[in-house]
Amino acid sequence: MFQVPVGVSARHIHLSEEHIAKLFGSGYELSVLKDLSQPGQFAAKETVAVIGPRGQFDKVRILGPARGKSQLEVSRTDAFTLGITPPVRESGNIAGTPGIKVVGPAGEMELAEGVIVAARHIHFHTDDAAKWGIADKQRLSVRVEGERALVFENVVARVSDQFALDMHIDTDEANAAGVKTGDIAVILL
Amino acid sequence: MFQVPVGVSARHIHLSEEHIAKLFGSGYELSVLKDLSQPGQFAAKETVAVIGPRGQFDKVRILGPARGKSQLEVSRTDAFTLGITPPVRESGNIAGTPGIKVVGPAGEMELAEGVIVAARHIHFHTDDAAKWGIADKQRLSVRVEGERALVFENVVARVSDQFALDMHIDTDEANAAGVKTGDIAVILL
Repeated sequence: MFQVPVGVSARHIHLSEEHIAKLFGSGYELSVLKDLSQPGQFAAKETVAVIGPRGQFDKVRILGPARGKSQLEVSRTDAFTLGITPPVRESGNIAGTPGIKVVGPAGEMELAEGVIVAARHIHFHTDDAAKWGIADKQRLSVRVEGERALVFENVVARVSDQFALDMHIDTDEANAAGVKTGDIAVILL
Repeated sequence: MFQVPVGVSARHIHLSEEHIAKLFGSGYELSVLKDLSQPGQFAAKETVAVIGPRGQFDKVRILGPARGKSQLEVSRTDAFTLGITPPVRESGNIAGTPGIKVVGPAGEMELAEGVIVAARHIHFHTDDAAKWGIADKQRLSVRVEGERALVFENVVARVSDQFALDMHIDTDEANAAGVKTGDIAVILL
C-alpha cells in the first residue's frame, strides 16, 4: 500500500521580494504564522486582498518565503467568484496566465500574470520516490476512500531531497472527494 | 462504452407549496425560466436568499415544480461559505439535516431541516437501465476524461420511466474533474 497523506490547499499567494515591498513597504519581512509540510515553507501572518472583475477575496494568505515570481493559486470555484479563467498549471509555470489586482496595507498593484489553478501533485522525498520506483513528473492515479471515494488521475509526481511526502489538492478536489488535510490516499501503482 | 451526459448542479432549492406561499404570497405559482433534463422539472424565474450563520447567497435558483418537502442543495464549498455542515445525502432523505433561513420577496422563514450536499447520481430511464443491466440504487464507478481526469466511485443509480439519462454532480465535483454540463462520462461496468 503506497500511502500518502493529503494536504488541502486553500487559495493562497506567493509573492516576490519586489511585490512584498510594493504591498507592505520597502524592506518588509513576512512573519511566520505556521510551518507547512514542505521544509522551509510557511504560512505568513500577512494576507492581501485580490480583486477580480466579478468579485474579490479580502484575506488571501501569503505563503513564504518570497519566490522569484508572484503566483496566486485558486480553486475553479474561487476563479468563478473572481470572474477569471486561469488554467490548470504546475506551480511556477505561469506564462500566459491571467493577472489580478492585489492590495496590501502599504500599496496595491496589478499582477500582470500568475493566477493558476494548481495541478494536483505529490511531493516525494527522493528516498520515497526511489523506494517506490516513482520518477519526477510521472503521472499517477491516487485513490481516496469514503462516501465520496474517487480516483484522481493525472496526479503529478514532484521529487526532491527538499520535499516531504504529501499530496496537494485544492478545496474543490478535497470537497469532491470528501477528504481533509491529514487523511490518507493510496497511489495505484 | 456506457456513455452518460454530465449535468452540473449549481446550488438550488426545491420548495413545498406551503413555503412558496410563505415566501412569495398565498396562491403564488412559479414561472418557468428553462426546462431541465428530467421531464417536467424546470428552473424557475424566481430566486430566494439563503442566510447561514457565517455567510449568505442572495440569489438561489428555485427548481420546480413544488415538492412535498423543501430542500436546499449546496456544494461543500457553499456550505463552508454559509457556515453549516450538511451531510452528503440522496435527494429527499433529509431527516436530521441542518436548516437555514430563507428569504423571499413576500416573507421569510426558518427551514427546520433540508440542507444537503447531494450525493452524485445518474438518472436512468428504465429502458437504459435494463439494456445496461443496472439496478435502482446500484453504486457505480464513472470516469471522466481530460487534464483533471478522475473516476467517481459511489455514484448512485436512480431508475424510473420518468427519468432521462443524465449524471448529476455538484460544482465542487465538476471543478475537481474539469467537466461542464454536456460533457460525456463513461460508466465502468
